[in-house]
Amino acid sequence: MDFTIPENTQSMMRAIRDFIQHEVYPLEREFLNTSFRDMLPLLVEKREKAKAMGLWAPHLPAELGGQGLSLLEFAHVSEELGRSPLGHYVCNCQAPDVGNMEILMLHGTDEQKERYLAPLIAGEMRSCFSMTEPGYPGSNPTWMGATAVKDGNDYVINGEKWFTTAADGAAFTIVMAITNPEADRYLQASMVIVPAGSPGFKLVRNTSVMGETGSDYASHAEVTFDNCRVPQSNLLGPEGAGFVIAQERLGPGRIHHCMRWIGICERAFDLMCGWAATRQVAPGRTLGSRQIARTWIAESRAEINAARLMVLQAAWKIDQAGSSAARNEISLIKFYVAGVLQRVLDRAIQAHGGMGVTDNLPLAYWYRFERAARIYDGTDEVHKLAVARRILRGYGDT
Amino acid sequence: MDFTIPENTQSMMRAIRDFIQHEVYPLEREFLNTSFRDMLPLLVEKREKAKAMGLWAPHLPAELGGQGLSLLEFAHVSEELGRSPLGHYVCNCQAPDVGNMEILMLHGTDEQKERYLAPLIAGEMRSCFSMTEPGYPGSNPTWMGATAVKDGNDYVINGEKWFTTAADGAAFTIVMAITNPEADRYLQASMVIVPAGSPGFKLVRNTSVMGETGSDYASHAEVTFDNCRVPQSNLLGPEGAGFVIAQERLGPGRIHHCMRWIGICERAFDLMCGWAATRQVAPGRTLGSRQIARTWIAESRAEINAARLMVLQAAWKIDQAGSSAARNEISLIKFYVAGVLQRVLDRAIQAHGGMGVTDNLPLAYWYRFERAARIYDGTDEVHKLAVARRILRGYGDT
Amino acid sequence: MDFTIPENTQSMMRAIRDFIQHEVYPLEREFLNTSFRDMLPLLVEKREKAKAMGLWAPHLPAELGGQGLSLLEFAHVSEELGRSPLGHYVCNCQAPDVGNMEILMLHGTDEQKERYLAPLIAGEMRSCFSMTEPGYPGSNPTWMGATAVKDGNDYVINGEKWFTTAADGAAFTIVMAITNPEADRYLQASMVIVPAGSPGFKLVRNTSVMGETGSDYASHAEVTFDNCRVPQSNLLGPEGAGFVIAQERLGPGRIHHCMRWIGICERAFDLMCGWAATRQVAPGRTLGSRQIARTWIAESRAEINAARLMVLQAAWKIDQAGSSAARNEISLIKFYVAGVLQRVLDRAIQAHGGMGVTDNLPLAYWYRFERAARIYDGTDEVHKLAVARRILRGYGDT
Amino acid sequence: MDFTIPENTQSMMRAIRDFIQHEVYPLEREFLNTSFRDMLPLLVEKREKAKAMGLWAPHLPAELGGQGLSLLEFAHVSEELGRSPLGHYVCNCQAPDVGNMEILMLHGTDEQKERYLAPLIAGEMRSCFSMTEPGYPGSNPTWMGATAVKDGNDYVINGEKWFTTAADGAAFTIVMAITNPEADRYLQASMVIVPAGSPGFKLVRNTSVMGETGSDYASHAEVTFDNCRVPQSNLLGPEGAGFVIAQERLGPGRIHHCMRWIGICERAFDLMCGWAATRQVAPGRTLGSRQIARTWIAESRAEINAARLMVLQAAWKIDQAGSSAARNEISLIKFYVAGVLQRVLDRAIQAHGGMGVTDNLPLAYWYRFERAARIYDGTDEVHKLAVARRILRGYGDT
Repeated sequence: MDFTIPENTQSMMRAIRDFIQHEVYPLEREFLNTSFRDMLPLLVEKREKAKAMGLWAPHLPAELGGQGLSLLEFAHVSEELGRSPLGHYVCNCQAPDVGNMEILMLHGTDEQKERYLAPLIAGEMRSCFSMTEPGYPGSNPTWMGATAVKDGNDYVINGEKWFTTAADGAAFTIVMAITNPEADRYLQASMVIVPAGSPGFKLVRNTSVMGETGSDYASHAEVTFDNCRVPQSNLLGPEGAGFVIAQERLGPGRIHHCMRWIGICERAFDLMCGWAATRQVAPGRTLGSRQIARTWIAESRAEINAARLMVLQAAWKIDQAGSSAARNEISLIKFYVAGVLQRVLDRAIQAHGGMGVTDNLPLAYWYRFERAARIYDGTDEVHKLAVARRILRGYGDT
Repeated sequence: MDFTIPENTQSMMRAIRDFIQHEVYPLEREFLNTSFRDMLPLLVEKREKAKAMGLWAPHLPAELGGQGLSLLEFAHVSEELGRSPLGHYVCNCQAPDVGNMEILMLHGTDEQKERYLAPLIAGEMRSCFSMTEPGYPGSNPTWMGATAVKDGNDYVINGEKWFTTAADGAAFTIVMAITNPEADRYLQASMVIVPAGSPGFKLVRNTSVMGETGSDYASHAEVTFDNCRVPQSNLLGPEGAGFVIAQERLGPGRIHHCMRWIGICERAFDLMCGWAATRQVAPGRTLGSRQIARTWIAESRAEINAARLMVLQAAWKIDQAGSSAARNEISLIKFYVAGVLQRVLDRAIQAHGGMGVTDNLPLAYWYRFERAARIYDGTDEVHKLAVARRILRGYGDT
Repeated sequence: MDFTIPENTQSMMRAIRDFIQHEVYPLEREFLNTSFRDMLPLLVEKREKAKAMGLWAPHLPAELGGQGLSLLEFAHVSEELGRSPLGHYVCNCQAPDVGNMEILMLHGTDEQKERYLAPLIAGEMRSCFSMTEPGYPGSNPTWMGATAVKDGNDYVINGEKWFTTAADGAAFTIVMAITNPEADRYLQASMVIVPAGSPGFKLVRNTSVMGETGSDYASHAEVTFDNCRVPQSNLLGPEGAGFVIAQERLGPGRIHHCMRWIGICERAFDLMCGWAATRQVAPGRTLGSRQIARTWIAESRAEINAARLMVLQAAWKIDQAGSSAARNEISLIKFYVAGVLQRVLDRAIQAHGGMGVTDNLPLAYWYRFERAARIYDGTDEVHKLAVARRILRGYGDT
Repeated sequence: MDFTIPENTQSMMRAIRDFIQHEVYPLEREFLNTSFRDMLPLLVEKREKAKAMGLWAPHLPAELGGQGLSLLEFAHVSEELGRSPLGHYVCNCQAPDVGNMEILMLHGTDEQKERYLAPLIAGEMRSCFSMTEPGYPGSNPTWMGATAVKDGNDYVINGEKWFTTAADGAAFTIVMAITNPEADRYLQASMVIVPAGSPGFKLVRNTSVMGETGSDYASHAEVTFDNCRVPQSNLLGPEGAGFVIAQERLGPGRIHHCMRWIGICERAFDLMCGWAATRQVAPGRTLGSRQIARTWIAESRAEINAARLMVLQAAWKIDQAGSSAARNEISLIKFYVAGVLQRVLDRAIQAHGGMGVTDNLPLAYWYRFERAARIYDGTDEVHKLAVARRILRGYGDT
C-alpha cells in the first residue's frame, strides 16, 4: 500500500486550487445572489482561461481534447473543483454533461459523436438527461412510465419526466423510455437522444427547488414527451440497454459526486476554521478558543479524511477492476460521504451563527442544494439495502 | 398531574386547525413561489376573516382586542398556527410584532401605546426589532457597538444592525443601544423606538438568507443608524433596562417559537405519513410498508410528543411562577425542540425523495429557514452552557 | 393541564429518596462486588425496615398490604426506587414478581391467590416467568415451541426457556405454553403455574450475561420442561388467554421499567454533576468548568425531562383509559426512554473517565445490564414498527 | 496511490486468520466463562504453536525473534489477531508488554535488555506499566503525584497508581514518577523499572471493572509505592524523559489498539451477518430479510472500511515520517475508530437480541471492556481538542 499522491497529480491539483481561488471564488458572491443566466458571459471568459491553462475537460482522453486522467486522478481533481459551486462547470466536467459525454463516447454512433459529443466537449452546447418521473419512485429505476414506440423510421415517445437537470438551455436530452415492455425488467428501457426543438418535446417549467426556480444550467426541469418524434438513428446504444448503460455510467458518476462533496467539505472546513480563528466571542477571545468549536473541527477533520480515503479506494478499484467489481464500494461511499457532507455543512453553519445562513458565503447554498445528495443517484436507503443484500448473500441468505 | 387539555382550549384549537386548513393551506403554494409583498392583498382578506372568527391576536388580553389566553393556552394555539408558514401572520401574532406588543404593553408610555401599540394590535402597521450586530457575537448579548447619546431633547443613535427581521415595510423599529457605558454590563443598553422615516436611519438592504432576499414581512434587513435622531420620549422602559426587558421578553418568546416549531413538526409528520401511506414504491406496495419509513415515523412521533410535553410544562411553569423561575426549562426546550424540528424535517424530506426538496410542499421552506432555529434567540450552545452552569452551581461548582 | 405533583405523592417520594439514600446506597458497593445470595440476610433487614416505614409493595391495593397507588403515583415512586439497583427489590416491587402479583391478583383462583399471591406479597417467596425461548425470536411472541398437553387431570409440559429471570431460588414459575395449537395465533398459548420442585422441571443453568452468571434474584436461567406434570388447576386465567394476559400485563410493566430507568438516569446525572463539580482537571479548574462536560449535562437534563414527562403522560392515560388506549404511548416510551438511558449512562461514564468503568460506582453495572433495556419487553425495533403500523393505518395504509 | 496489500502480507494475514479461527476461537467460550489464570496451561500450548508457525512477536525485528514487520504490516496483522480477545496474547504482542518491549528495545541498557526484554520476548515473563493515578486526571498526563527521589544509589519511590493493567502476575512494572519537579512540565517525570518483589511495592487489589475483578493478565491493579527502593540503574531512558518516551510509544501503540478494534469490528460484523442470514424471525423469513437489519449491516460496513483506511494511512505515515509528523492522524483515528467500535458492537448486540448480551458470544465482553476504548490512551475529548488546537494554529489562532 502506498498513500503517496503522484507528483504530477499534486501539481495539477495545485494548479486547479490556484485557479479556483483566484478566478472562481471572486464570482461566488454574484453567483449566490443573481441568476445563472446573467452570469453566462463572465463564465465564458473563465472557461476560456481554463482551456488555456490545460484544465479543460480533465475527465476526457487527451485525443478528445481532455486531460487523459484515470478515475483516481480525476477524483483528486474533482475535489479541487468542488471547492466552489462553479468549479466543475468552468472546467466543463459538470453533471449531467460529464455523464452524457461518457455515454456518447462509449456508445454513440459516429454521427452521434460528431453531432452531439464534439460540441459538448468544445463547450459549445449543453445537454441533459431525462430519467426520473414524478409518478414513479426513483428507488425502483426499472419501473417507469415513459415509452418509445417504433413508427416508420421514428420513435414516438410519450412520457413525463422531472428533475431533468439543466434542461433549460440544453441542446438535447437523453431520455430513458420503455421500448421493450415484454423483455426482462432490466432490458426494457432504451436511451434516445431528443434534440431540444423536437416536435412534442416540451420544457414545462423549471421546478422550484429549495426556494429557487433557477435558470439555464442551474435548474431542474419538468419536461413532457407528447407523441414526440425522433428518428430511430437517435437510439443511443443497443435497444433495451438503457438500464445497463445507466448503471455503468453511475459508477464513475458517483465517484465524481463524492469527490465534489469532499471538495465542498474542505471548503466548509476551511471557512469554519478561518472564522473560528478570528471571530471574537468575547474581547480578546476567539471562537476557536472554545471547546465546542474545537470538537466540531476535530470531528469534521476525521470524517472528511475517512470519506476521502474511501472514495479514492473505490476509484482505484474501478480503475483496476471495473465498476461492477466495485459495486459495494460505490454504494458505501454514496451514502457515507453524503452523510459526512451534511454533518460538516451543518457544523460550519452553526459555527458561523447568523452569518452561516446568509448568502455571503456558499455554506447556505450547499446546505440547500446538497440536501439532495442523500437522494439523487440513489437514496441512502437504496444503497444501504443493496450493499447489505449482496453481503448477506455471501452468508447464504437469499 | 392532569394532562387533560381543557375543553375550551380544545375547541379553539379545532377552530384554528380548521381555519388554517381551509383558508391558509391553499395560499401556501403561492407563498412558496412568489414574493411576500405580492401576497399582501390576499393576506389582508384572510386577516379580516381571522378577526371575524375570533382568532385575532390570541396572545393579547381581551380588553386590548385579543383572546386573553394564558401562556399555556397560547402555546396550544401557537402549535396549530405553526402548521402553516403563514399561520401566525394571519392571526397577527407573528414575531417580532408579538414581542414588541408585549414590550409596549408592559413598558410603553401612554403616548407610545397610542401611537405604536394600538396600530400594531389593529394590524395597521408592522414593526421590527434591531438588536443583532454583524461585528459582535450573538452569544454575548451585552456586548454591542450601537450607542444612543443624549443631545438636547434627543437621542443621537449610531450603529449597524442586521437580522432586523421584517424591517422592510415596518413602521418603526425598537433598537437596542448602549446608553450607559459606565454601568454594569447588564445595565448599559436601552431600548429606543425609531420610526421608519427618522433622519439617519437607513434600511441598507435585505440580507439574502438561504437563497432569498425576501420582501416585506418575509425579510431580514441590515439597517444603519448614522447620527440618527429621535426624541428622548422614544425611550422604551427605563434607561439601562434594555437587556433586562429583552430577557423578560425572550421567555415567552421562546415558548412561542417552540410551539410553532412543534406545529411545523406535526405538519411535516402529517405530510410524511400521508405520502408513505399512498406512494407506491413497487406495484401494490406503499412506502409505508417499508421498515425504514416506519422507523422514521415512530422516532418522529416519539420526539414530537416529548418536545410538546416539555414546552407545555415550561409554559405552565411560566404561568405559575414567572420566566425567571423557568429559566432552565426555557433553555432546555430552546435547543431540544430545535433539534427535534431539524430531525423531523430531515426525515420528512428524505421520505418524500425528490418531491421533498421541491417547493411543491412547505418542507424545503422550513428546512431552509428553520435551520436558524438552532441559532436565533440564543444558539443551542449558549443555552446548553447556561443551563449546565446553573445546574453545576447547585453542586457547588462556581 | 396541571403539572403539579400532589403533596401526598411528593411526600412519599421524599420518604423513599431518604430511605434509599440512607439505607440502600450504603449496600451498593457490596452489591457490585459480591454475589446476591450472600447479601440476602442484609436485604431481609432492609425489607423489614421498608415494611415498617410504609414503603412496602407500593403498587398493590391497601387491602392486600400495599400502598394503594395509582399507576401515575407508582410511576413517581418507581423513579425514586430506581436510583439504586436494589431499590425495587427492597420494597418488594421488583420484576418479575411485580408482574406475577398483578396477574395472580387479576386472574388467579382463590386457591392460587392463597398459595402463591399471599406469600409473594409478604415477601416470603419469589417467583419467575418463563416465556422467551432460545430457538424463537422474542420479536414474534406468539411463535413458540413449548406445549402443555392435557393428560388426565394434569398438563404435561414440554419446552425449553431462557431468560427466566430470577428462577434461581424462586418458588414457582409461570410458564407460557401452547395449549390450543389450532386456535388463532393470539389464542394458542396459556399460562400455567409450575412449582419449583415439579417433576420434569429443571433449572439447567444461570446464563452468563454481561460477564456474570449471577445468583438468586440476580440471575437469568435456562429452564427445561421435560414431560413436566402439574395439575390442571394450575392453569392461570382462561385457557388460550396467555398472550392476552401477557399483553395486558406488559402495559403497566413498561411504565415500571421506564420510570425505573429514569431513576437510573437521575442517579447517573447526579453522579456526573457531582464529579464534574469537584474533579480537578488542572490545578484549580474543575471538570465542570469545561464546555464539553457542560454540554453533556445540559443534553442529559433535557432528555431526562422529556423522557419523564412522556412516561408520566402514558401512566396517566393508562389510569384514565386503560392499557389498550395507550398502546402507542407505551411503545413510544419503551424505545425512547431506553435510548435516553443508554445515552445518559454513556455520558456519565465518559465524564468519570477511568473511574466510570470501575465497580466503585453503579454506572458500569447499569451500563452492562441495562444494555438489554433496548431488547427485553420488546426490542426498540418491535415497538417502532408496531406504533408506525398503527399510525399509518390512520392514513389509510394497510 | 496504491491500495494493494502486498502478497506476503496477505499470506501472513491468511495464516493468522486460519490460526485464530482453528486454534483460538475454540477457547473463547471458556475464556468468557472462567478466570484467566485457570486458562494459562491451555494458553501456553497455543503460544508454542504460534511460535512454531512463525507468528510469534510479529512486531519485533527478526534479529530479536520477531517477524520484522513494518508498522503498516503489523497493522494488518493486528486486525487479524484482534478478531479474538485472545489473539494478541497468544502471539505475544499484547499491551502493555508490546509497548514495554518497544521502550526497552529503544531505551534500555544492555543489562536491562538482558534482564527484562529477553524474557518478555521469549514469553517467559509479563510486565506492566504504572502511569494513571486515581487522584489525577488522565487528560493531563504531566500532572501526577508519584515521586522518585534519589537516595544513595537508589530511587525511593512514593505514589499510588491504578489501572496498572496486568500487574497481577507481572514480573516488573515500569513506573512513571516525578524526578525533576523543578523542570519544565514535560521534563519532570522519569520511567523506572520496579521488579515485582521490590520492598515497598504492593499490589493492593485488582480493581473490579465492568463486573470483573479479573486475574493474571486480564486485570487492572491498584498498586502503591511506599518508600519503594530500587537501584538507580533501573532508570529507563534519560532522567526527565519519561513523558517524551511515553508520547513516542503511544503513536504506534494507538495504531495497535485501533487495528485491534477493527479486528473486533470485523468479528462482530461477521457474527451479525451470520446470525442475520440464518436466524428466523418468522417461519421461512430470516432476520436478514428485514430492512432494519440490512441498514445496520451497510452502515457498519461503511464505517469499518472508513476506519481501516484511516488507520492504515496513519501507520503508513508513521513508517514514512515518524510519529511526530503523524500526530494529527493518530489523534483522529484514536477517537474515530473507538466510536466506530462502539457503534458496530452496539448494532451486533441489538441484532442478536437476548443472545447478544449473553457470554455465549464475545460481543458482550467487548461491549463491556472496550467501552474504555474511548477513555484509555487519551479520551475522545483529549484527542479532539489536541488536533483542533493544532489545526487552528495553522489559521493563526493561538
